[in-house]
Amino acid sequence: MALPIKPNGKIKYLQCIRCGETYPVDDYFEGCPKCRDEGNPANLTFVYAEYGKECPLPYDSYFSLGEGNTPLLTVFDEFPSFYLKYEGRNPSGSHKDRMSAMIVTRAAEKGYEGVAVATSGNAGLSLASYCAYFGLKCAVIATKDLNPQVRRFLEAFGAEIHLTDTPMERWEILKRKKEEGFYPGSNYSNPPVGTVHFGVQGYKAVAYEIVGQLKGTVPAKVLVPASRGDLLWGIWLGFKEMKQADPSLALPAMIACEPFARLSRVLAGEDYTRSFPGETALKSIDGTTVTYQAVKALRESNGFAIEISNEEAEAARKELAKRGILLELSSAASYGAYKKLRKNGAIGEKEVVVAIGTSSGFVEI
Amino acid sequence: MALPIKPNGKIKYLQCIRCGETYPVDDYFEGCPKCRDEGNPANLTFVYAEYGKECPLPYDSYFSLGEGNTPLLTVFDEFPSFYLKYEGRNPSGSHKDRMSAMIVTRAAEKGYEGVAVATSGNAGLSLASYCAYFGLKCAVIATKDLNPQVRRFLEAFGAEIHLTDTPMERWEILKRKKEEGFYPGSNYSNPPVGTVHFGVQGYKAVAYEIVGQLKGTVPAKVLVPASRGDLLWGIWLGFKEMKQADPSLALPAMIACEPFARLSRVLAGEDYTRSFPGETALKSIDGTTVTYQAVKALRESNGFAIEISNEEAEAARKELAKRGILLELSSAASYGAYKKLRKNGAIGEKEVVVAIGTSSGFVEI
Repeated sequence: MALPIKPNGKIKYLQCIRCGETYPVDDYFEGCPKCRDEGNPANLTFVYAEYGKECPLPYDSYFSLGEGNTPLLTVFDEFPSFYLKYEGRNPSGSHKDRMSAMIVTRAAEKGYEGVAVATSGNAGLSLASYCAYFGLKCAVIATKDLNPQVRRFLEAFGAEIHLTDTPMERWEILKRKKEEGFYPGSNYSNPPVGTVHFGVQGYKAVAYEIVGQLKGTVPAKVLVPASRGDLLWGIWLGFKEMKQADPSLALPAMIACEPFARLSRVLAGEDYTRSFPGETALKSIDGTTVTYQAVKALRESNGFAIEISNEEAEAARKELAKRGILLELSSAASYGAYKKLRKNGAIGEKEVVVAIGTSSGFVEI
Repeated sequence: MALPIKPNGKIKYLQCIRCGETYPVDDYFEGCPKCRDEGNPANLTFVYAEYGKECPLPYDSYFSLGEGNTPLLTVFDEFPSFYLKYEGRNPSGSHKDRMSAMIVTRAAEKGYEGVAVATSGNAGLSLASYCAYFGLKCAVIATKDLNPQVRRFLEAFGAEIHLTDTPMERWEILKRKKEEGFYPGSNYSNPPVGTVHFGVQGYKAVAYEIVGQLKGTVPAKVLVPASRGDLLWGIWLGFKEMKQADPSLALPAMIACEPFARLSRVLAGEDYTRSFPGETALKSIDGTTVTYQAVKALRESNGFAIEISNEEAEAARKELAKRGILLELSSAASYGAYKKLRKNGAIGEKEVVVAIGTSSGFVEI
């Protein structure tokens, strides 16, 4: 279904989130050209002429399948200050739909014939369904251990599927698909910058929704399952923009939930452009690299990263399921982090904390 | 999570949809006692003191997980008057969540320890998750060919699972669970009456939402995958109540999409209390019985029933998936019916038609 596209007239320019250099609006798939050339890849972001009560997005009218406005649920009587932002309620079952709406709109606006994405599953399902609905092609690039059910869904959506031996090879194929005329719907640079700034903008609305659902309260901490941190950074951007519109608002500490030490090592002094090998069953957040944007979200918000083991995520997933909420294993890491941080005292009993439940478990188990 | 329950103070009484006898509010799991004793089982319905713009439900405050307000989507450029009401966006992935909200609330209000349900899958997933969230037990009764993935989800939700050799045996176990103190979340009578009137009320909101989403237009026809017709009848009730509030409104023809001739045979003169054997892959609507409520919805609305074969449903499912919308096979029957009725001329090019896409396909294939 073709729909009208209307860019937001209040966009001033793009700005590098690392060096501050400004650029006219364009795609810059490899982030800030200056920082890239210096070997310090960093994403760009949108600067708007004004900020208000509504979340500014790159488009006023865009390709939507009704993503967003997900429920904020209390789950446990014993944790009345704990809230789960249940992103599994998005059209394809994960937060990625917020990104897909922006990316598919941008690709259509610029006349691309399709979108290509390197994915472990969720971004592929999301972009494949959005592309199918709005009449674009979709190329999904995954490793050979792709969940066979996800593969059947992708085939049903008519996506072109590429399977590789290693995660890094996905980025090589994505680069080639870009040269063939596909819009890159995920990072392909190494070291990575993250998903293109158009996509990341879609995540800002999570912050606006949370504060609305909490009737004006900004949570003390927001727990986000993270790898290259598109969502982590996008939510943080949202909170910062809300504060620009209303300086009386507080800011939360952003906490990345990671399956093995990556962001925590960078916060402790290691270079963010190196790679951090590790093993995990948390496939949606198992990347061996981090990004400047993820590190920046944690540093600026006085947040930190916490490691969540397979066992901790599994225990968290089971507890949530016993309360009727089925999350993907990686998504349950945020509640696992809550429990761990309550236990070690880093989160107090009365602190309002929001954990992002990134994806439904209806596909995975 | 325990939440406040507040019954709707504007309920006048219950009324039999067949003989018109009135009763005070109670559960009457076997429908109207008078009609039952005559061998003509029929459901009861709620009569309210007044009808307005809002859908009246048995409760003003009830146990909700955010069901309802599902999108109404145009899908095909070549069918601009065709709309899909995508019920797969409900919390557990199907329209059954609208019913579960009412049933779990009623069960908790009356102090039941749990809810029991005979199901082919969707009602079980829905009630198991709602019961888990709101702290009730759930007993799910299905035949042995239950989808193994659905079984794993039910186990994750902590449901008690009973598997039988035949569909009819499910009703025997359900009756026993009722005697053990579980609220029956689905029909157990044979011949059937349908789900308890509290549950059916949840479906009325579909009608209100459709007219709101069409900015005041009542569709000419509404296509509903149907077996015992809880949803078919519930949506029809909604349209009738809207017209009571605003007599200038039109009423749609309700069209039941069935996998083999059952309702069509009753409309042609056969007794609705008999059984209608048939084979189908459309498991969510494969019952061999019909109900008075389903027949009444079709007769009152000048509607009819249309048979949809496995192949027609599969073709419809594939076409929708190629547009990014993944439905369960049974759910795609409504779009299959649209195509068939356009082809034979029973639906005109410009008629506004809504097909109910009852359930997401993310579990099934």
